[in-house]
Amino acid sequence: MMSHVTEFDTIAAISTPIGEGAISIVRLSGEQALTLANRVTTGVDLTQVASHTIHYGHVIDPQTKQVLDEVMISVMKAPKTFTREDVVEINTHGGLLATNRVLQVLIGQGARLAEPGEFTKRAFLNGRIDLTQAESVMDLIRAKTDRAMDQALQQLDGSLNHLIQNLRQEILEVLAQVEVNIDYPEYDTEELTTKMLSEKAQQVQQRITQLLKTAQEGQILNQGLKTAIVGKPNVGKSSLLNVLAKQERAIVTDVAGTTRDVIEQFANVNGIPLQLVDTAGIHETDDKVEKIGVDRSRQELQRADLVLLVLDGSRPLDEEDQVLLQKTATQKRIIIINKQDLAQAFKPQDVSANADSVIQISAVAQAGIDQIEQQIQQMFFAGIQRQQDGAVLTNARQVGLLQQAQQSLKDVLTGIKQGMPIDLVQIDMTNCWDQLGEITGESAPDELITQLFSQFCVGK
Amino acid sequence: MMSHVTEFDTIAAISTPIGEGAISIVRLSGEQALTLANRVTTGVDLTQVASHTIHYGHVIDPQTKQVLDEVMISVMKAPKTFTREDVVEINTHGGLLATNRVLQVLIGQGARLAEPGEFTKRAFLNGRIDLTQAESVMDLIRAKTDRAMDQALQQLDGSLNHLIQNLRQEILEVLAQVEVNIDYPEYDTEELTTKMLSEKAQQVQQRITQLLKTAQEGQILNQGLKTAIVGKPNVGKSSLLNVLAKQERAIVTDVAGTTRDVIEQFANVNGIPLQLVDTAGIHETDDKVEKIGVDRSRQELQRADLVLLVLDGSRPLDEEDQVLLQKTATQKRIIIINKQDLAQAFKPQDVSANADSVIQISAVAQAGIDQIEQQIQQMFFAGIQRQQDGAVLTNARQVGLLQQAQQSLKDVLTGIKQGMPIDLVQIDMTNCWDQLGEITGESAPDELITQLFSQFCVGK
Repeated sequence: MMSHVTEFDTIAAISTPIGEGAISIVRLSGEQALTLANRVTTGVDLTQVASHTIHYGHVIDPQTKQVLDEVMISVMKAPKTFTREDVVEINTHGGLLATNRVLQVLIGQGARLAEPGEFTKRAFLNGRIDLTQAESVMDLIRAKTDRAMDQALQQLDGSLNHLIQNLRQEILEVLAQVEVNIDYPEYDTEELTTKMLSEKAQQVQQRITQLLKTAQEGQILNQGLKTAIVGKPNVGKSSLLNVLAKQERAIVTDVAGTTRDVIEQFANVNGIPLQLVDTAGIHETDDKVEKIGVDRSRQELQRADLVLLVLDGSRPLDEEDQVLLQKTATQKRIIIINKQDLAQAFKPQDVSANADSVIQISAVAQAGIDQIEQQIQQMFFAGIQRQQDGAVLTNARQVGLLQQAQQSLKDVLTGIKQGMPIDLVQIDMTNCWDQLGEITGESAPDELITQLFSQFCVGK
Repeated sequence: MMSHVTEFDTIAAISTPIGEGAISIVRLSGEQALTLANRVTTGVDLTQVASHTIHYGHVIDPQTKQVLDEVMISVMKAPKTFTREDVVEINTHGGLLATNRVLQVLIGQGARLAEPGEFTKRAFLNGRIDLTQAESVMDLIRAKTDRAMDQALQQLDGSLNHLIQNLRQEILEVLAQVEVNIDYPEYDTEELTTKMLSEKAQQVQQRITQLLKTAQEGQILNQGLKTAIVGKPNVGKSSLLNVLAKQERAIVTDVAGTTRDVIEQFANVNGIPLQLVDTAGIHETDDKVEKIGVDRSRQELQRADLVLLVLDGSRPLDEEDQVLLQKTATQKRIIIINKQDLAQAFKPQDVSANADSVIQISAVAQAGIDQIEQQIQQMFFAGIQRQQDGAVLTNARQVGLLQQAQQSLKDVLTGIKQGMPIDLVQIDMTNCWDQLGEITGESAPDELITQLFSQFCVGK
């Protein structure tokens, strides 16, 4: 991608959340940002003021001279801005109407309504950030726990970008050397060239393997661990969900079959965001309404990263429990025997030969919850070691491209082994270089970039 | 109230609407604003920078040095700020977590979480704005139409404040003169003193009367015109409501008795916000659920500023229609004969001797709607003349106090007529001066001020 400032039209959007609040921000970016803002405001001449200064004024309708709002205007001149273009931020008096009036008058003067993520897209197109940093901007906004947010901040800082850049640089140097050797074979033997290629491919492969190991942590922190809580009716699923989420969301009653809807919420377990899925139970039923819930629960169960299977320790195990134990046997699961505050009708070893995976709790008394949290930590984060530079993969796009790059390196090594001509091997190595470049956006196709930024929120 | 800058502790709050957005603002105000912001940010020394400048930096936890967010920091030094105190605004990366982390670390360093409206309260206590301007700040945020917003802007500009200040000044001058006359009776006769008092009381009375005439417009623009749409089932109430509100909110069906709930929404009729109240009909019913709706409808009807009585022109008038015509006879109403697109079963003069108050429409074909809008304009805004200076009363508090002031002036005039001692008449005149001062806040009791600002949103 280009890394110099390109000239685009001037865009405008409301950059604060929509709603009634004390202050809202209408943001402008582009070559005409100052001129447009100047045309709709009274006070100082914004084109003459110093960069990064704040000015009191009024937004007016340039035709009628009618005052539309009393505002504070922040002027930030290129290149030291979010987009590397001239940026004007108009802080309005909150409220939907005031903010919309200001936006509308700017649109009326020729600003274009920004697409979702278009400010960040410009920061990328103008070379201020790479694609992984752009992705981290949205991860920051959507972070559900401190740990997820810290990860996003680290990526925003460019850690993944730098690592990928370094790998590409190393590949590029080898490719250049290979080129020289092909053009001037007298300087080297083909044997030495393939040796060099093979060594580099293995080195890069190793680095990528390490990086791919971070993907699980990165993606879990980013998107949450999809956790299904299953169990027959009235074993205490909702109570457990509430204890984990530390807030009363699902309605907890003593009537079996209460939780008819699949309720999603987030729990923060040692910084790991659990996307909790409460279920209507996956028992057989003839009730039509209940059946819808049961079907949805079954689907949720299959998609879950983690299953919390809840049993009622105060009642003997029945056929329904056995069915659930069987159905979830192949998934990552924790078996939870609830109601330890009552007399127990069976023992942990009755449900699993592996005692580690069985945890006894009392959701009502909030006893044993720590053990569940430790177990989750153990199951998903044990053995994960951070890269020294803190680079972590945070989404499926990055993982997919790295897997492709890994495959290209495999092709390089296979090609060398099979004695393929050096210029064909070279193609695979170049593919790897391209795939890595797609992660940072240096060789990303336009459609990808458009699609990626369309997931952003408006005004970012 | 004091009009010099008083020292308060330093307050902090999130000043943008709560939600996921591109940017959120954490605002600080108070003597320690710069010091506190400096302690939790890296980048420049904020205490050393020029006022009204913007700086790039990171918010960090001062203990752990951990980076909490990448931010832009706006520094505005007293006295040219919203609160007249040092103000720092930290623009975070949107998102609930980022914003809360920044707020929390500031609280951890000694900032106090601001109460609702506390920033505006400080602007008032520090003498930058009066109470009517403070009230207009919230009116601005909550404005539903352009006209309502323009009115709030005008009040923010101080038009009402100036008018009240002038009246108080005139009263004060008379009171001072009366004082002199009482102390040095040789300079004047009692007759001349009472004449002066009487003339001034009448002058002020006249001005207040004019001002009170603006109250209806002001309050309607501010709070909306409570408009009840009534009619027997299936006459097209919901269709009319939708046409007026220009969006599909109530469910429109052909089944009688569909609209069970009282649905409130705003319509913008030539800048007049109508707070539309759809009703379940006020017919007799034995259905228990429906009966609740019917009871609520009756209450809404009584409280309404305007009644839109809808009749079905395609069916002959029946007993139910007659009951509604009778029940709403004493209220401000517009009789609407709907379904003009079908053959008509009765004539306008069958329902009212006064043809002006009857409008024929077709809600489905959206015909005749303009006439309703004109009629509303005519009924509520005809003959209202703006004060030359644009001052308008916008809420019940202002109206109530002006009515009290008016009563005090009446007491002054009655006292003079009845030959009461001049120092007793003087007390009534002083009361008037106090009551006017309560409108601007110059003589408002603390409880009033606390109560008034508690209705503000957090961060304003």
